[in-house]
Amino acid sequence: MMHQQFQECIDACNACADACDHCSAACLQEEHVQAMARCIELDMDCAQICRLSAAYMARGSEFAAALCRLCADICRACADECGKHKMDHCRECAAACRRCADACARMSGA
Amino acid sequence: MMHQQFQECIDACNACADACDHCSAACLQEEHVQAMARCIELDMDCAQICRLSAAYMARGSEFAAALCRLCADICRACADECGKHKMDHCRECAAACRRCADACARMSGA
Amino acid sequence: MMHQQFQECIDACNACADACDHCSAACLQEEHVQAMARCIELDMDCAQICRLSAAYMARGSEFAAALCRLCADICRACADECGKHKMDHCRECAAACRRCADACARMSGA
Amino acid sequence: MMHQQFQECIDACNACADACDHCSAACLQEEHVQAMARCIELDMDCAQICRLSAAYMARGSEFAAALCRLCADICRACADECGKHKMDHCRECAAACRRCADACARMSGA
Repeated sequence: MMHQQFQECIDACNACADACDHCSAACLQEEHVQAMARCIELDMDCAQICRLSAAYMARGSEFAAALCRLCADICRACADECGKHKMDHCRECAAACRRCADACARMSGA
Repeated sequence: MMHQQFQECIDACNACADACDHCSAACLQEEHVQAMARCIELDMDCAQICRLSAAYMARGSEFAAALCRLCADICRACADECGKHKMDHCRECAAACRRCADACARMSGA
Repeated sequence: MMHQQFQECIDACNACADACDHCSAACLQEEHVQAMARCIELDMDCAQICRLSAAYMARGSEFAAALCRLCADICRACADECGKHKMDHCRECAAACRRCADACARMSGA
Repeated sequence: MMHQQFQECIDACNACADACDHCSAACLQEEHVQAMARCIELDMDCAQICRLSAAYMARGSEFAAALCRLCADICRACADECGKHKMDHCRECAAACRRCADACARMSGA
């Protein structure tokens, strides 16, 4: 069971999922929601794949690396979109997404 | 929104997830559980990624094709493992996994 | 394994999850997104708990009835909100939510 | 957005989900898997509802308290079952489940 060696990446995935879920809800309360549509879409995708990646890693799944490779791509796309906006929830989300993309890339050997 | 064109693949993912979740629970009740360990592991992985793939497709996510490509790989691995066992729940699961792998491969253009 | 007796409710949950995921994405593309904020929030909650309820039922979980009871409440809230809007995706979502609420209520003996 | 006030409970849910996912996989590798069947079942249920509870709380969902109330029940059942076994993964999982049950009970005012 490689649970321990994955711990850093699991933590990054959980933190990223929380930040994305929070950001999607906060974006929905912004005055200019329309400008946040793609941010909300990517937040949803990113939160869900991060939670699944954490589950695969915690189980030591033989597909954990492959899922983390895709998770890194989605985290990067979400970081790029959130990085365009100046609200705190977007800036914090972008930072969490970048950390998670790096951790997933390292974990999957990409 | 490409919800409709994805419908066949969404249906295959939902059916596969249900079959995998059922198979994992039924395997746990078998006399020789130890021989079913990898089947249960793959059932869990497959059920979860199928449910996520259905969600991405239903939302028309820009990452739906990439996720379905990986989903097809996991479905194939699960079908191969379930195909080794003679219990009804394994046979039905293997068939659902194969149908889903094909639908995901078509959908993702793989 | 009570997988078969749950089949009607599992199907209703999967259909409701797909409709909610589709509705959330379609609402985000509407001109008046701000008016759709609560609809999108409830769509996300409803899609996710419906997919989890299907998983619990397919596994014959001892907590399937308890989860379906809560799922029925969330489906009803989502149906009420979607029912206020005249777009096709909202009307279809409201109908799927109502069917799922009824199936979950029956399944959980509520 | 009540994201911050939920942070302790979100952290407890993520830690519990990781422990349950790890425990389910480790139980499957035990010599006497049959004796671990209910532990594995509850681990799966608990991991999934904990990840969903974290998502609801991070979004500030109006149903977060109701979901956490049920999550507390499932965490307690999982803690009781894991508490019967002497393996490290079960002991650590039982402890994480108890902490999460308490956090969810506080959060939901139960």
